[in-house]
Amino acid sequence: MADEPEESADNVVFIGKKEVMNYVLAVVTQINEGSDEVYLKARGRAISRAIDTAEIVRNRFLPDLDILDIETGTEEIEGEDGTSNVSTISVRLGK
Amino acid sequence: MADEPEESADNVVFIGKKEVMNYVLAVVTQINEGSDEVYLKARGRAISRAIDTAEIVRNRFLPDLDILDIETGTEEIEGEDGTSNVSTISVRLGK
Repeated sequence: MADEPEESADNVVFIGKKEVMNYVLAVVTQINEGSDEVYLKARGRAISRAIDTAEIVRNRFLPDLDILDIETGTEEIEGEDGTSNVSTISVRLGK
Repeated sequence: MADEPEESADNVVFIGKKEVMNYVLAVVTQINEGSDEVYLKARGRAISRAIDTAEIVRNRFLPDLDILDIETGTEEIEGEDGTSNVSTISVRLGK
């Protein structure tokens, strides 16, 4: 089997608070530059935006791109008033 | 193979704008009442809350419950100023 394309700093798009089209453009650019797979990573409320990004990319720009895997988790983050848990998601997009 | 437990109105929890613990309680109640699987369904910004719900249920209440499948999609919704797209998610929880 060809080497599984792995997650590296190059093919990860971290979803934050920007407008969703910023992330859509980042994914399309990476795929057009030859990445076989792109990982969308988000935490907390940005999780919805990660799903928006995946859906817009597939519906409007790269219809042959699939959601290969979705992993969720929980991270502990330090805040002013101690630690709290936040959900995380990693969406693997590829052909 | 035993009949695949299917999605029916009974084992679906629709995630809205309430506090996440409401949905956590709904899932725990359904599993304790004998459901083998529970589907969490959400749209738009509630998608993050659906992932929060799944994570809190597994981390704090039912550690042997797994996320069996996550499906995403896009729906068209009618608004005041015409139709717009909204992302959807369905998270299947089970043992």
